[in-house]
Amino acid sequence: MTNLDGQTQPSPVDDILHLFNRTRSQTLKLSAPLSAEDMGLQSMEDASPPKWHLAHTTWFFEEFILKPSLPGYQPIDDRFAQLFNSYYVQAGPRHTRSKRGLLSRPSAEDVMNYRNHVEDAVRHGLMTDAFDLDEPKLEELITLGCHHEMQHQELLVTDLLHAFSYNPLLPAYCEPKPLPVTPARDLSWASFDGGLLQIGHAGDGFAYDCEGPRHKVWLNPYRLANRPVSNGEWIAFMEDGGYETQTLWLMEGWAVKEQNAWDTPLYWWKQDGEWWTYTLQGPRPVDPSAPVVHVSYYEADAFARWAGHRLPSEAEWEAAAEPTAIDGNFLDTGVLLPTGQKDSLWGDVWQWTSSAFSPYPGFKPPEGAIGEYNGKFMVNQMVLRGGSCATPKLQMRASYRTFFYPHQRWQMLGLRLAADQ
Amino acid sequence: MTNLDGQTQPSPVDDILHLFNRTRSQTLKLSAPLSAEDMGLQSMEDASPPKWHLAHTTWFFEEFILKPSLPGYQPIDDRFAQLFNSYYVQAGPRHTRSKRGLLSRPSAEDVMNYRNHVEDAVRHGLMTDAFDLDEPKLEELITLGCHHEMQHQELLVTDLLHAFSYNPLLPAYCEPKPLPVTPARDLSWASFDGGLLQIGHAGDGFAYDCEGPRHKVWLNPYRLANRPVSNGEWIAFMEDGGYETQTLWLMEGWAVKEQNAWDTPLYWWKQDGEWWTYTLQGPRPVDPSAPVVHVSYYEADAFARWAGHRLPSEAEWEAAAEPTAIDGNFLDTGVLLPTGQKDSLWGDVWQWTSSAFSPYPGFKPPEGAIGEYNGKFMVNQMVLRGGSCATPKLQMRASYRTFFYPHQRWQMLGLRLAADQ
Amino acid sequence: MTNLDGQTQPSPVDDILHLFNRTRSQTLKLSAPLSAEDMGLQSMEDASPPKWHLAHTTWFFEEFILKPSLPGYQPIDDRFAQLFNSYYVQAGPRHTRSKRGLLSRPSAEDVMNYRNHVEDAVRHGLMTDAFDLDEPKLEELITLGCHHEMQHQELLVTDLLHAFSYNPLLPAYCEPKPLPVTPARDLSWASFDGGLLQIGHAGDGFAYDCEGPRHKVWLNPYRLANRPVSNGEWIAFMEDGGYETQTLWLMEGWAVKEQNAWDTPLYWWKQDGEWWTYTLQGPRPVDPSAPVVHVSYYEADAFARWAGHRLPSEAEWEAAAEPTAIDGNFLDTGVLLPTGQKDSLWGDVWQWTSSAFSPYPGFKPPEGAIGEYNGKFMVNQMVLRGGSCATPKLQMRASYRTFFYPHQRWQMLGLRLAADQ
Amino acid sequence: MTNLDGQTQPSPVDDILHLFNRTRSQTLKLSAPLSAEDMGLQSMEDASPPKWHLAHTTWFFEEFILKPSLPGYQPIDDRFAQLFNSYYVQAGPRHTRSKRGLLSRPSAEDVMNYRNHVEDAVRHGLMTDAFDLDEPKLEELITLGCHHEMQHQELLVTDLLHAFSYNPLLPAYCEPKPLPVTPARDLSWASFDGGLLQIGHAGDGFAYDCEGPRHKVWLNPYRLANRPVSNGEWIAFMEDGGYETQTLWLMEGWAVKEQNAWDTPLYWWKQDGEWWTYTLQGPRPVDPSAPVVHVSYYEADAFARWAGHRLPSEAEWEAAAEPTAIDGNFLDTGVLLPTGQKDSLWGDVWQWTSSAFSPYPGFKPPEGAIGEYNGKFMVNQMVLRGGSCATPKLQMRASYRTFFYPHQRWQMLGLRLAADQ
Repeated sequence: MTNLDGQTQPSPVDDILHLFNRTRSQTLKLSAPLSAEDMGLQSMEDASPPKWHLAHTTWFFEEFILKPSLPGYQPIDDRFAQLFNSYYVQAGPRHTRSKRGLLSRPSAEDVMNYRNHVEDAVRHGLMTDAFDLDEPKLEELITLGCHHEMQHQELLVTDLLHAFSYNPLLPAYCEPKPLPVTPARDLSWASFDGGLLQIGHAGDGFAYDCEGPRHKVWLNPYRLANRPVSNGEWIAFMEDGGYETQTLWLMEGWAVKEQNAWDTPLYWWKQDGEWWTYTLQGPRPVDPSAPVVHVSYYEADAFARWAGHRLPSEAEWEAAAEPTAIDGNFLDTGVLLPTGQKDSLWGDVWQWTSSAFSPYPGFKPPEGAIGEYNGKFMVNQMVLRGGSCATPKLQMRASYRTFFYPHQRWQMLGLRLAADQ
Repeated sequence: MTNLDGQTQPSPVDDILHLFNRTRSQTLKLSAPLSAEDMGLQSMEDASPPKWHLAHTTWFFEEFILKPSLPGYQPIDDRFAQLFNSYYVQAGPRHTRSKRGLLSRPSAEDVMNYRNHVEDAVRHGLMTDAFDLDEPKLEELITLGCHHEMQHQELLVTDLLHAFSYNPLLPAYCEPKPLPVTPARDLSWASFDGGLLQIGHAGDGFAYDCEGPRHKVWLNPYRLANRPVSNGEWIAFMEDGGYETQTLWLMEGWAVKEQNAWDTPLYWWKQDGEWWTYTLQGPRPVDPSAPVVHVSYYEADAFARWAGHRLPSEAEWEAAAEPTAIDGNFLDTGVLLPTGQKDSLWGDVWQWTSSAFSPYPGFKPPEGAIGEYNGKFMVNQMVLRGGSCATPKLQMRASYRTFFYPHQRWQMLGLRLAADQ
Repeated sequence: MTNLDGQTQPSPVDDILHLFNRTRSQTLKLSAPLSAEDMGLQSMEDASPPKWHLAHTTWFFEEFILKPSLPGYQPIDDRFAQLFNSYYVQAGPRHTRSKRGLLSRPSAEDVMNYRNHVEDAVRHGLMTDAFDLDEPKLEELITLGCHHEMQHQELLVTDLLHAFSYNPLLPAYCEPKPLPVTPARDLSWASFDGGLLQIGHAGDGFAYDCEGPRHKVWLNPYRLANRPVSNGEWIAFMEDGGYETQTLWLMEGWAVKEQNAWDTPLYWWKQDGEWWTYTLQGPRPVDPSAPVVHVSYYEADAFARWAGHRLPSEAEWEAAAEPTAIDGNFLDTGVLLPTGQKDSLWGDVWQWTSSAFSPYPGFKPPEGAIGEYNGKFMVNQMVLRGGSCATPKLQMRASYRTFFYPHQRWQMLGLRLAADQ
Repeated sequence: MTNLDGQTQPSPVDDILHLFNRTRSQTLKLSAPLSAEDMGLQSMEDASPPKWHLAHTTWFFEEFILKPSLPGYQPIDDRFAQLFNSYYVQAGPRHTRSKRGLLSRPSAEDVMNYRNHVEDAVRHGLMTDAFDLDEPKLEELITLGCHHEMQHQELLVTDLLHAFSYNPLLPAYCEPKPLPVTPARDLSWASFDGGLLQIGHAGDGFAYDCEGPRHKVWLNPYRLANRPVSNGEWIAFMEDGGYETQTLWLMEGWAVKEQNAWDTPLYWWKQDGEWWTYTLQGPRPVDPSAPVVHVSYYEADAFARWAGHRLPSEAEWEAAAEPTAIDGNFLDTGVLLPTGQKDSLWGDVWQWTSSAFSPYPGFKPPEGAIGEYNGKFMVNQMVLRGGSCATPKLQMRASYRTFFYPHQRWQMLGLRLAADQ
C-alpha cells in the first residue's frame, strides 16, 4: 500500500505479520540457552516444560486459526492436538497437566519443526490472502495468539527457574552480569483524589476479555508508595519476627506458612551470615535496595499489616497508572531480575492487590473455546498489576490483570504499599 | 427508672439484660432435644460439637467481660480458658480444633454448670453495677457476645445435622411435622436502577466490624429474582447434565466436584425413583417448590451459568434489601427447613453472591482479640446474604455479611439469580 | 449332672456358661468408670469407641450363634446388624469404620439393653437346650465369642487411653495408686539349644485358626533376655542420639519417624527436666525400671541394633515360653501399667518379634465369615508375643500370636532382646 | 599369565576385567535407543531416569573403589558424589530421590563422559596394579559393583516403560518383532518331598549379603506348577469377578485395589473387545499363553486363592530351583517380554512368594556403607524369585532374593502357583 506522498505505509497485514514475527522470534531467543534436556523439565503441576510452552503457543495458532480458516492446511502430526491443548475443554481432550514433563517425545527438535510448520502456514495465509476468514476477526485472533504467546514467554522463564531450583548445581539461565548499584531510596507517597472514575479497557487496542467492560467505580482518596517494597524492608520484617507473629497474618495464610515452613521469600537462604537468592542469573547476594520478589499474597498481606499500611485495590492501581508511561524493567531489558532502578508503577515485580479476580460488571466471555481464556478462573485468585522483569513490555496496559492463587510464589511476585489519605 | 408520667421505661441495662437472657435461653432450648452423647459429636474440622458451642459462647463472656471487668470473678475451672477458645490468638493457647469431639470431659452437665456460673456472674454484674467498665463499652461487648452466640446457634444445628448424617439411623433432631404445601411460583424479576449508592452499616444498632464503613459503590441497573432457586429447578439442571457439563463450571469447581463425586446437593439420595433428602426433621422427600439448599458456590455458579443468568454481587443484594422488611423463615419459626412460602429477600437459605469476602474501603479491625473476629478470614471466601431457616431473626440486617469457602455445603446455602437489565 | 459318687461335676454347659458369664461381666467392669460421653470416643480409624466394643462383642454372639441357632430369636433392633459388624464381609454391609465415633445413637443405655437382651438369649439357650446346633460346635463358637470379647477388652482400654490423650485434662481412667518400687535388674540371658522343634497350637484347648497347624521349625541356638527392655535403657538410647542416627534404622522406619517427628515413645513428654508419661492411671513420671511401652516396630528394631542385639523370632519366643507358667502382669491385676516386677516371658508389654504375620505351613481358614478372623490380615504386619498389662490372662497361650503394623504404637507394645549364641 | 602347557589362562584380574567390561558395555547397549530427552524421564519416586541409572552405577565404582583405593584419582566433578548417591547414608548427603527427573544438567553427554572417566580409571587400576588394596577384597568390590549395575539394567528398562506409559504416543523402546507363537500348555505339577533342607547362598561365587547365611529349614511335602500363571488364566479370573470378590482378597489388598481402581494388571486396556497391553515393544495384543506380568502381591495372592491354591514360600522355590539349570527368557534374549516358551522355574517374570523379606538366621550386614545394601529394607516387602525377561542372566542364582512392596506393579512381576501335597 502506497500513500499519497509516495511512501509505503504499513497495511494491517504488515502490522500483524510484524507482531507475529517479533513474538515468535522472541520465544526462540528465550529458549536458545536451553539444552534439549532443559526443554523437558516440569517441576510441579502449576509449571510446564519450556518445550511444552513452545508447542502449546504454536498449537494455539494451529487450533484456532489454521484448522478452521486455512483451506488445505495439513497438521504436521494429528496427535499434537491433544498433547498441546492446555485447558480448552471445547477444543477436545487434553494430556494430563501434571505429566507434561514426561513427554520426551516429540523431541525438542520435533517441536521446532512444528513451530516452523505452523509459522510458515500462518505467514503463507497472511501474505497470500489464503485465509478463509474476514480480516478483522483474523487479525484479532492472531493478535490474541501473539499476546497469549507473550504470556507463555514469562511462564517459560519463571517455570524454568523453578525447575532449575531443584538442581543442586543451581544453573544460571543467562550469564551473570554486573548489575547497576541500586540507590537506596526512601519510601514516599503519591496522593490520589479518587471519586467516581472509570477503569477497565476501552478503545481499539488489544485487551483480554476480563479487562472489560470499562465501568464506573468509586474510590476514596488514597496514597500509593513511590516504589515496591524492597528486600531491605523485607529483611526488617523478618528480623522483627514477621514470620512468627500470628496476629499479622490471615488465618489461612498462617496455616499455609506453617505447613510449608516458610520463613523467607522463595529461593532465599543464608550463607556465612548473608542472605542469598537464586535467580535466572544463578545464585546472587540479596540486594537490599531491589524490590522483594517471590512472595505469596499471604506474606504480602502480612507485611503490609506489619508496616501499618495495606495493599492497593486493583482499581486504585489502575486509576493511578492509566495516565503514566509504561516505563520499567521488563523482559525486554534482558536483566531478568528486579533491580529497582527508578520510581515507576511498572515492571520489576508484579504487585499483589487486595482485589479478588472477579468479573467486571457486565462481563461476558466470548463464545467458543476462546471464551475459556479467563472467565473460568474467576474464583479464589487475587489480581496483580504492573508487570515484572519477566513480562514482555508490549503485553502491558494499565488495564492488564494477572491473577494467582494466594499461596503461589514462583512467579515474579512482589508488592507496593497503599494507604488511605 | 420511671418516666414523668409514672410509667416504667426500660433502662439500657434492662435492654441488655433482656437480650442476654433471651439469647442464652434460646441456646438452651436448641440443645434440649440432645442427649449427652449427641452433645459431643464432631464430624469434621469445620464443625464443632453442640457442647462445645454451648461452652465457647460462654467462654466469650467470661474471657472478654467477666475476667477483665468483674472484680473478684472466679472462674469455675481455669482450664476452660484453653479448652473453649476458638481462634483468638491474643486470648492465649487453644485446644486443637479438629479434636473438639474428643472432649468427653468436661461433661455436658459440667458445661451446663459452666453456663450457669457465667450467666449468674453477668447478671450479677449488670444488676449491681459491679462491672469495672463504663456502660456503653460494656453494653457493646455484651451485645457482641449475644450476637456471637446467635451465630453459634445456627452452627449448632447445622453442625449437628452434618454429624447425624453419618449415622445410618438418620435421627431426626426435631419431630417431623406436616409442612405447608409450597405453591409452585414462576420466576419473576424485580428491577433496580443502581447508580452511585451507599452500602455498609451505618447508624446506632449493632453490627460486626466487617459490615462497615458505610461507603459509596456504583451499580449498573440490575434485576433480582423474586425467590431463591427451587429444588425443582435444580432437578432440571441435574437432568440436563449440569453436573457433567464442564463448560458450565469454574475450572476449580469442576476439579472439586470430580474429586468429591458430587452429582446432587449434599444430603440427597434417590429411593424408588424419587429424590429424598436428610433434614433436621429426619429424611424427607425433596419438595420441588422449596428452595434448594446445601449447594456449594461452585454449584451455584454453574447453575446460574446454565440458567443464562448470574449471581448477584453483595452490593446489589444489599441495595435491594435495605428498604425491605426482614420477613422470612428464620430459626425462630422452628421449622428448620427452607419452605419457600412467599417472595422475600430474606430467610430460608443463605444466598451465595459473586463477591469475595474483602475489607470494605477504610475497614480497620478493632484493637485486641476482638479484632480477630472477622478480619483474618478475608481471603478465599465468598459472601452470602439474607439469612436462613437456621439463623435467628434478631441477627439479621441488610448489611449482614456471612462468608464461606466456595466448596462448603453443610450450612443452609442456596442461591438467588440476578441479571443485568 | 451328678457323678457316681454323688458329687456334682461341671458339665460342658456349666463350663461354657461360666466362661460366658465371667467374660461378659469383666467387660462391664471395665466400662464402669466411663461416662456415657466417654463411651462414644473414637480418636482414629484404628481405634473404636468403648460403646462400640461393647456392642460389637454382643453382635458377634447374636450374628454367629443366636440368629443361626436359636429358634425364635428376635433381635432387639434389626439395624444393629449393620452398625456393629466390624469387617466380616460375609456377614453383610458394615458401618464405615472411621465414623464409629459419630454413633451418638444408639445410646450407651441402648447398648447395655442390647447386651442384656443377647446375654439372656444365650443363657436361655444354654440352660434349656433350645439351641439348634450340636453341642461341641456350639461350645466352640461361644468360646470363640468369649475370646473375641477378651481381645476387645484389651482394645477397649488401650483405645480409650488414646482418645483421652487428646484431652488436655488428661483424665485418669482408674484411680492412680501407689505402685510397688520396681527393682532395677541387670540384663541377663537365658540360653536355648534350638534344633528341630515344633511350634503352633496343638491339643484340645481353644486357639485361633492362625495359631496352627503345629509344625516343625529349625532353630539355631539362641539367647533371650531375662526381662523386657526398660524405660531406663530407652532413655539411654535417646540420650545416645538413637532417634537421630539414621544408620540404626530401617529405611522405612526412618521415613515414618521423620514424618511423625517421633523422638520418644508415644505419650511421653519432658516436664521440669523429668520424663513423664500418660497412662490409664493418668500422668506419671516415667519409671526407669519398668518396661518401655508404646514403641513401634521401627523403634524396637532400631533399639535392638543400637544395643548390639536383635529381636527374637516368634518361633524362638514360643519355643522358650511353651514350657513356662503363664505368670505376669495381665489385665486381671487391675494395675493397667507395665511394672516389671519380676523375670517372666509373659505380661507387662507385648514383645515385638522379627517375624512377619504369615500363615503357618498348611494353614487354611475355616469356612464362612468366621474364616475372616485372622487370615485376611496376613500381610505387612509383625507378630508380637506374650500379652500385656491390658490382656486378660485367660486369653494367653504360648502359641498366641497378635499382630500390628510396624508403625503402630497405641497398644501396650514393647520388646525383649534376643541374640545368637 | 601362562600355564605349564603354554596356554594363556585367565588370571583373576582378567576375569574381573571381563566382567566389568561386559557389564559396562551392556548398560550402554541398553541406553542406545534413548534420546537425551528420554534419558531424563522420572515418572514416580520409585523409579529413576535412565541417565541417573547410568551415573549412579558409575558413582558406585567411584565412591567405593576409586576414591578409597586408587591413589591420585581425581573426580571429574566433585558435585556428582551428592547427585548420584542413592540411599547410602554413610556415603554422605544425597539429592532428593523424587527430584532426579529434574537434573537436566549434568547432561546425558556429561554422564557419558563421567562413565568413561571412571571406567578408564578402573581399568587403569586393574591393569597396572595401581590399586591400594589387596586383590581379593578389590575383586569382591568390583564384582559387587558389576552386579549392582546389572540390577540397575533391569530398573533402567522397567522404569523407562513406566515413564513412557504416560506418553499418549506410547513409544516403543525397541522395535516390535514377530514373537514365536506360545503353545498353550496345561497346568501340571511337580512334587517335592521337603524335609530338613538347607537354603541360602554357600560357596565361592558372588552373592548379596541377604542371601546368606546358608541355613536349615523344614519343609512339608509340596508341589509347584510347571509354569507361571498365564494371561489367559488371569482373564478367566477377571471374568469370574476376581477383582470384585472381596473374600478373595487380603483386607489391605482390597483397600489398595479400591483406592487405585485396579481391575486389570498394569498397562492393560480393552480396545474393540480385545485386551491390549503396553510393552517395551510398544502396544501389543495380550497373548493368552504368555505369563501374566505387572501384577501386585495383593493381586497374585487373590488369584491364588481364587485358583484354590497358594503362592510358594521362598524356601520351597529355592529348594526346587537349586538343582536345575538357569534356563529361561532373560534380558539377554533381547525380547523384553515374557513369552512362556517352555517349562522352567526361571525367567520371564519374577514370581511372588508368600515370604516376607526378612533376615536369615545369623544374618549380619557388612560394615560400612556397603552394609546398607539390603538390610535396611527388611520390613513390609515380599520376596520374589526366579528373574524376569528384564534380568541379566548372569545375575541369577537359586539363592537370589529380590523384594518389592506388595502394592508395586511396575517391575516384571508375576506368579507361579504352589500347593500342599
